[in-house]
Amino acid sequence: MKFNYNLPVNILFGRGRINEVGTEVAKYGKKALIVTGMGSTKKSGLLDKTVSLLREAKVECEIFDKVAQNPITTTVYEGVEVIKETGCDVVLGLGGGSIMDAAKSIAFSAKNSGDISEYIFGIKQGTEALPIVLVPTTCGTGSEGNCFSVLTNPDTKDKKSLRTNAIIAKASIVDPELMTTIPKSILASVGFDALAHNMEAYLSKIGQPLTDMQAFYGIKLLAQNLTKVYNDPTDLEAWENISLASTLGGMVIGVAGVTAPHGMEHPASGLYDIVHGKGLAALTPVIVEASWESDIEKYSDISKLLGGTGAEDCADAIREFLNKINLKVTLGELGIGEKDVDWMAENCMKVSKPSIVNHPREFMLEEIKEIYYKSL
Amino acid sequence: MKFNYNLPVNILFGRGRINEVGTEVAKYGKKALIVTGMGSTKKSGLLDKTVSLLREAKVECEIFDKVAQNPITTTVYEGVEVIKETGCDVVLGLGGGSIMDAAKSIAFSAKNSGDISEYIFGIKQGTEALPIVLVPTTCGTGSEGNCFSVLTNPDTKDKKSLRTNAIIAKASIVDPELMTTIPKSILASVGFDALAHNMEAYLSKIGQPLTDMQAFYGIKLLAQNLTKVYNDPTDLEAWENISLASTLGGMVIGVAGVTAPHGMEHPASGLYDIVHGKGLAALTPVIVEASWESDIEKYSDISKLLGGTGAEDCADAIREFLNKINLKVTLGELGIGEKDVDWMAENCMKVSKPSIVNHPREFMLEEIKEIYYKSL
Repeated sequence: MKFNYNLPVNILFGRGRINEVGTEVAKYGKKALIVTGMGSTKKSGLLDKTVSLLREAKVECEIFDKVAQNPITTTVYEGVEVIKETGCDVVLGLGGGSIMDAAKSIAFSAKNSGDISEYIFGIKQGTEALPIVLVPTTCGTGSEGNCFSVLTNPDTKDKKSLRTNAIIAKASIVDPELMTTIPKSILASVGFDALAHNMEAYLSKIGQPLTDMQAFYGIKLLAQNLTKVYNDPTDLEAWENISLASTLGGMVIGVAGVTAPHGMEHPASGLYDIVHGKGLAALTPVIVEASWESDIEKYSDISKLLGGTGAEDCADAIREFLNKINLKVTLGELGIGEKDVDWMAENCMKVSKPSIVNHPREFMLEEIKEIYYKSL
Repeated sequence: MKFNYNLPVNILFGRGRINEVGTEVAKYGKKALIVTGMGSTKKSGLLDKTVSLLREAKVECEIFDKVAQNPITTTVYEGVEVIKETGCDVVLGLGGGSIMDAAKSIAFSAKNSGDISEYIFGIKQGTEALPIVLVPTTCGTGSEGNCFSVLTNPDTKDKKSLRTNAIIAKASIVDPELMTTIPKSILASVGFDALAHNMEAYLSKIGQPLTDMQAFYGIKLLAQNLTKVYNDPTDLEAWENISLASTLGGMVIGVAGVTAPHGMEHPASGLYDIVHGKGLAALTPVIVEASWESDIEKYSDISKLLGGTGAEDCADAIREFLNKINLKVTLGELGIGEKDVDWMAENCMKVSKPSIVNHPREFMLEEIKEIYYKSL
């Protein structure tokens, strides 16, 4: 047994804790850049409420609402420009995974100039960032619990994480009540992303006792509660459980990393801007079929948690689970064709090699192509 | 469900990892104060090895070897004097719980002048400390995994923790091989301390999902491995498991706190300098008898992990476990008498109130006296 564990998260979990956002942000700065999306936080009133809570805590703010799904590197530079113009000294990410990831990279780029892709690919190192506070409004990415910020470079289509403890949030307010208005289709895809995080960290070659127990619990919580919430959005206890599982999923991949499903999904959503959770839904069962024999004990645990009987029917258990949340989908249905397979497989080996190596069975290029074909 | 989770530990776990002590300390300073005990690290050669590894990493060092069991506040001031005289800029604690706790408080007091008791009792606040690296040589305290430093004030006999995230180690090297030379009697008492930490955090009123799962696992590891190691000190895998359980025990109390057993033991070892694990062994079964009905589910879990059948025989399961490691003892056998009960009970309400409040059943003063009497 040999491992390192260093994950300096600061999680404030519970219903109604959004009310602490002003006092939390005030601990780290006097003027906040609120990074948010184009629609939902405005419609729900969350953005207005947050601005008001910041004002009560004597924190000024600027709003940056240009972040879209699968955020791109150039959006990050736009955010940095706003910081330079306005003198913001703390970044508040308010939204789903794309928003939080963009907020983290904006805070990083404000302190580390130049092409962020160079930091993502490890050509340059950065050790500091503006202080970050995160408020997730979806229960999927778990970005509030780790050191990752996934960005797509619009020129190369490379979708890859910036990874540095400098972008771990100083505080993450996880308020399950903020999530209860997620539309069903988004709930399914973000919820499956959370499940994928926990499953992949559980299977990770660099997993360790702390991540194993958290990931196992995360899978269990999602297996027991995601369909509940899907069918009855008024079940607040179930919302609490899946919100916790989502944060746990972020935390465990922050330590143990992801494996082949995320590694292979990134080239797909990098190329076509598809919904990440749908890409995972298309790929995961096929990957499990091609690798369950490499870790029978852990695939068996996952299968049983999802209602299966052992490692050999783990892929079926996942498909059955996807059925229940209407997320059974193929890459073909997402607009991806045979013509894209070679590029995706090669891009996977370029941007996702660590995730491929971290999978219980390390797939070679030809096997990766085969899995993409089967997932079409 | 409402909780905060913020425990920025940095654990480097595994056999042979002591070899990284030089490079780790070098990340945080150029001259280390090595805080260690009066004997064992010298006899075992660990101190010499450490000095040599520091030199290889171009780190100078001073040795401070004046820390005894149940470290006292005045020893901390002596350590600070050495820092002032020699210009050390990082503190390395090398030893058991007393050593690590002293190292943490020395690093704190080097940055926060005045009476440390004022910081312990919350009269003053300190937010920084010299960087700390910890290397435990016993598997009990878990001090390497939390923000506590327990000190005794020799004037008042108050034994109480300094608690601040400023004294969480920048790095903790947990090398199970360093522990394999612990004499059996010490192993029993430190091992039971580790078990007590995990049990108390599991029962804590402010427990939460993350501490519950870690504490449950810690209890399980100790239940399965402490007697193994006690009977066969060559079983390295069992050593790994109890070392991990000990660090987990430190981590969980760092978040969820301790309960009545630790709260009631501190006045005893504050007054008479008894072995902490023995004090816990005398008190814990009596406390469990007086409180198992207040959390039947969790006492039942603990009982079953220790070989019992349910909450009602949890105290017996603990006594049986203590028998197996020859740690069945009374406060009377440790030199404590009826004459001490009033002082201990009143001191408990003064120094340990938060731990008493945190217990599933909150004992009043008269009940605490009764438990002390029964434990004599």
